[in-house]
Amino acid sequence: MQSKGTLVVISGPSGSGKGTVVKRLREIMPEVSLSVSATTRAPREGEMDGREYYFITRDDFEDMVAQGEILEFTSYCGNYYGTPKKEAERITGEGRDLILEIEVDGASQIKRLVPDSVTIMLIPPTVSKLEERLRGRGTETEQVISNRLARAREEIKLATSYDYVVVNEDDGVEECAETIREIIRAERNKSARMSYITDKFLEN
Amino acid sequence: MQSKGTLVVISGPSGSGKGTVVKRLREIMPEVSLSVSATTRAPREGEMDGREYYFITRDDFEDMVAQGEILEFTSYCGNYYGTPKKEAERITGEGRDLILEIEVDGASQIKRLVPDSVTIMLIPPTVSKLEERLRGRGTETEQVISNRLARAREEIKLATSYDYVVVNEDDGVEECAETIREIIRAERNKSARMSYITDKFLEN
Repeated sequence: MQSKGTLVVISGPSGSGKGTVVKRLREIMPEVSLSVSATTRAPREGEMDGREYYFITRDDFEDMVAQGEILEFTSYCGNYYGTPKKEAERITGEGRDLILEIEVDGASQIKRLVPDSVTIMLIPPTVSKLEERLRGRGTETEQVISNRLARAREEIKLATSYDYVVVNEDDGVEECAETIREIIRAERNKSARMSYITDKFLEN
Repeated sequence: MQSKGTLVVISGPSGSGKGTVVKRLREIMPEVSLSVSATTRAPREGEMDGREYYFITRDDFEDMVAQGEILEFTSYCGNYYGTPKKEAERITGEGRDLILEIEVDGASQIKRLVPDSVTIMLIPPTVSKLEERLRGRGTETEQVISNRLARAREEIKLATSYDYVVVNEDDGVEECAETIREIIRAERNKSARMSYITDKFLEN
C-alpha cells in the first residue's frame, strides 16, 4: 500500500513561459511523469499505440469527451489530442506524480473530473512585461499581440480558481521550476494523502 | 501592499522529535519568526516586557483566553504561558511567516481562531519506533512510557484534521526540516495569498 500520486496541472497565459518552466521542472524532477495522449490522427511510421499516442477513432474520442473520460483536449489540423482520465489514474495509482500542461480555461474542468488534482497558474509579473515578451519574439503582428494581451487579462482573473499562483519574473525559469517542485513535494505531505502512513503507524 | 505571512503550527506526539526539527528549521529558514508569548509569571531581572514575554496578570490572561485572544496556552509551575492572537497577527501582517510549536490537541483550536493557519503534524514512522525512542532516553519509567504510547496513538488519530503530516524517520531531522521548509514556501504561492499579485498584474 502506498500513497497515490498527484495530478499536477500547470497552465498560464501565452507568454507566461510555461513550456520552458515545465521543461526545466522535468530536468530537476525526473521522477515526475507525463502521460500518453489519445489522438484521432493516424499513426505515423514507427509510432506504436500506447507509446507515442493512443490512436482512436473520432467517434470514440467524442464519446469519451461526452462521458468525462478525457481530462482536456485540443484540436489541431482537424484532429483531436487529449488526455484520457484512465491514463492519468493509472499513473497516479502507481504512486507517480503526473504533470499536465494545459490551456488556462481547461483547469476548472480537470478539477471537476479529478477533485484531488493540484492546479498551478504561471503568470508574468505585469501586463507590460508580458507585452515586452510578446513583442520580443518579433514574430507576431500588432493584432496578435493585442489579442494575446486582452486574453491574458481575462485568463489571469481565473487565478483565484487555481490552487497556486507562481510569478515568472525575467530570468525566472529556474526559480519557478524550483517553486513548483516545492509545491509538488509539499502536496505529497497533505494529510489526506498520508492516511496510509497514519494507518501503518497504528498497526506497527 | 504585500502578501500576509503564514501562521505555521507544528505539532506531534511526545517522541516525534518536533523540538529538534523546529530548531533545525529555524537554522535553514532564518527569515521565519517566533512570537513573544504572554505569561502570568513575574519578570526576572533583565527581562523586558514585550521582549522575553508580555507580562500580564492572571485575570487578564484568563479574560484573553475566554475571548479567544490567546491562540494556545500551557500552565507550568502555576503560571500560564500562551500566544496572543494579536502578536501572531502583527507578525503575519508584516508579511513574515510565524512558527508555533504546540501540543497536538491545540491545533484545531488555532485553526478555528486563525482559519488560514497551516497545521503540520510530525509523527514517528511506527508505534514500535516511538517506543524504542522513548526507551532510548533511559529517563522514563515503564508507566510513563506506556502512558506516552497510549497518548501518541490517540494523538495520531487527529492527523486527518491537520493540513500536512510529515514522518520523522530515524536520522530524519534534516529531511523533515527540509520538507517543512518546502511546505511553508509552497503555501506562500497559494492563490488566496497571491491575490495582490494578480491585482498588480492587471494594474501594470
